[in-house]
Amino acid sequence: VSATRLEVRAGALRSEPALPEAPGGLVLLADENTQALVPGGWSDVPRHVVPAGEASKSWQVLGGLLGALDAAGLDRDGHLLALGGGVVTDLGGLAASLHRRGIPWTAVPTSLIGQVDAAVGGKTAVNLGGGKNSVGSFHPPDHALVDPEALATLPAAHLRSGMAELLKTALIAGPEQTEAVRGLTPETLASAGERAEAVVESCLATKLALVSDDLHDQGVRRKLNLGHTFGHAFESLRLGELLHGEAVGLGLLCATRLAAGLPHTPLEQELRQLLGSWGLPVRAELEPEAVLTAMLRDKKRRDGGHTAVMLHAPGRVVVREGVPEAALAAALGAVLRPA
Amino acid sequence: VSATRLEVRAGALRSEPALPEAPGGLVLLADENTQALVPGGWSDVPRHVVPAGEASKSWQVLGGLLGALDAAGLDRDGHLLALGGGVVTDLGGLAASLHRRGIPWTAVPTSLIGQVDAAVGGKTAVNLGGGKNSVGSFHPPDHALVDPEALATLPAAHLRSGMAELLKTALIAGPEQTEAVRGLTPETLASAGERAEAVVESCLATKLALVSDDLHDQGVRRKLNLGHTFGHAFESLRLGELLHGEAVGLGLLCATRLAAGLPHTPLEQELRQLLGSWGLPVRAELEPEAVLTAMLRDKKRRDGGHTAVMLHAPGRVVVREGVPEAALAAALGAVLRPA
Repeated sequence: VSATRLEVRAGALRSEPALPEAPGGLVLLADENTQALVPGGWSDVPRHVVPAGEASKSWQVLGGLLGALDAAGLDRDGHLLALGGGVVTDLGGLAASLHRRGIPWTAVPTSLIGQVDAAVGGKTAVNLGGGKNSVGSFHPPDHALVDPEALATLPAAHLRSGMAELLKTALIAGPEQTEAVRGLTPETLASAGERAEAVVESCLATKLALVSDDLHDQGVRRKLNLGHTFGHAFESLRLGELLHGEAVGLGLLCATRLAAGLPHTPLEQELRQLLGSWGLPVRAELEPEAVLTAMLRDKKRRDGGHTAVMLHAPGRVVVREGVPEAALAAALGAVLRPA
Repeated sequence: VSATRLEVRAGALRSEPALPEAPGGLVLLADENTQALVPGGWSDVPRHVVPAGEASKSWQVLGGLLGALDAAGLDRDGHLLALGGGVVTDLGGLAASLHRRGIPWTAVPTSLIGQVDAAVGGKTAVNLGGGKNSVGSFHPPDHALVDPEALATLPAAHLRSGMAELLKTALIAGPEQTEAVRGLTPETLASAGERAEAVVESCLATKLALVSDDLHDQGVRRKLNLGHTFGHAFESLRLGELLHGEAVGLGLLCATRLAAGLPHTPLEQELRQLLGSWGLPVRAELEPEAVLTAMLRDKKRRDGGHTAVMLHAPGRVVVREGVPEAALAAALGAVLRPA
């Protein structure tokens, strides 16, 4: 596991960050929106720009990017810079893992989900056929350069969505990080300076610690799926309506009820209030049967009950095997209106 | 590094080899020629067939294969079988490394180069843009099932070409393996039974030992490039005329002269006689200048002389940095006619 060097600094992109040493050349990947954030001192780096949005996480766009790296003569000791949201870092990381069988890369995440989650940890992917992230690799960036000020231009809904991921990681980390995240709001994060730096950095450090013990996602890393077993099902059933983080926020409430085994515990109520205060949904209009079907489709061929991540308290997150379907159904009551 | 389990057995494919345990499903990759070699007991495995030949090592064919793995519902604990020559195992290994971020696979190499070299070691690739093997990964097969009888249907030129790779690995391994290889001929290998098994197995074990110490090709693995620094240049200048192994055979003569620093040593003469007896070329009609240019293009940005692999004696192969261009030019005299 190659370690990722983290650099979290508000204003980093305006302050002409250093370019990596790369005897084999440099290429910069951005999308149509994020190319506006390229530091002036990086303007001489050959640039490959892809359309903004999930459609760029495709086999065709990946092939075009790899062709551009080849045409640029990027060597095995070259380096790729990926500046953008989760789409750009997922795509760039995968291209870096494949070009000349793997070159180093730098993630410069510009979305909140990217900054606190997607850009580090090494999971790269594009979509192919019917499957989301069906093709990918594990290839952590050598360097993650994170500038919370870059969040200033994000749509409000994306900031809210990212707050749910930030909260998820804080809940895994412990009570102290959870308190720090409670003190932030989506509206003020980009201008929160050192406070934003501290929260984002601690969140990334938590994630990297879990990942470095388990790059290939067999053990402790699965804690990072907190809220996601439920969340992926909500997201797939409300595709285009529910952002990833919104779905994860709902999933956190279910994971809390699943751990408690009973409704309306103080922790569940606190989290509901916090998510609501950030403008995130705390209820979904969905049929429990449909959600369960979507959840179990994700888990096919894992016999003898299901694997679920449970939230007992901040810092007490447990991956449990053999969870019965009835327990998952009951936990859905945290966000679904009774039928 | 995941270890590859080696199974070398003459007649293995006729004797209904066991299928791997794969709760997440199986898919078999073959090409139009090699599907004739699929064991009867494997006929129920969903099959993806690609056209025979180097053109199948493409981004488009790789995308089609990955789409087929997705459509077949192959899970993270699924398994890919790749039955064919170097094209099929390079392509299949790369697909296995990318599908669901990596699934296990079995290499069933059916060409001699595949059996003694390409199918194990973990280098996977396709061609993209102008670059041969420009896109790829390191993803060793979990299992390599090698049946020397499968060689019976190979064209004679491909068998001869593979003998040069076999000889190369034997020269790295030592005098004993070199003697064993000298006792074989391209014509009799497929029917040599236990003798073929022993030579192929020892050759693969040598390669795996070097690879397991150095998956990412930074150190001792470079010994495996013996004959290849020269060979790649010959191959690129005589594209379509000179098979890979034929070029490597010429490269072995140059690597011997490079180590000795003088022409016509007993080892060089012995190797020349052996290659000739197998029907391999021992001379090439090329301009030394053109060969040097092609060699140095391969090595761009490695300043301060060149890296070369030298053959002092069977078992005495040395990777040397800082080799001057004049020494490379002199070594070319082993195979180029004087200008």
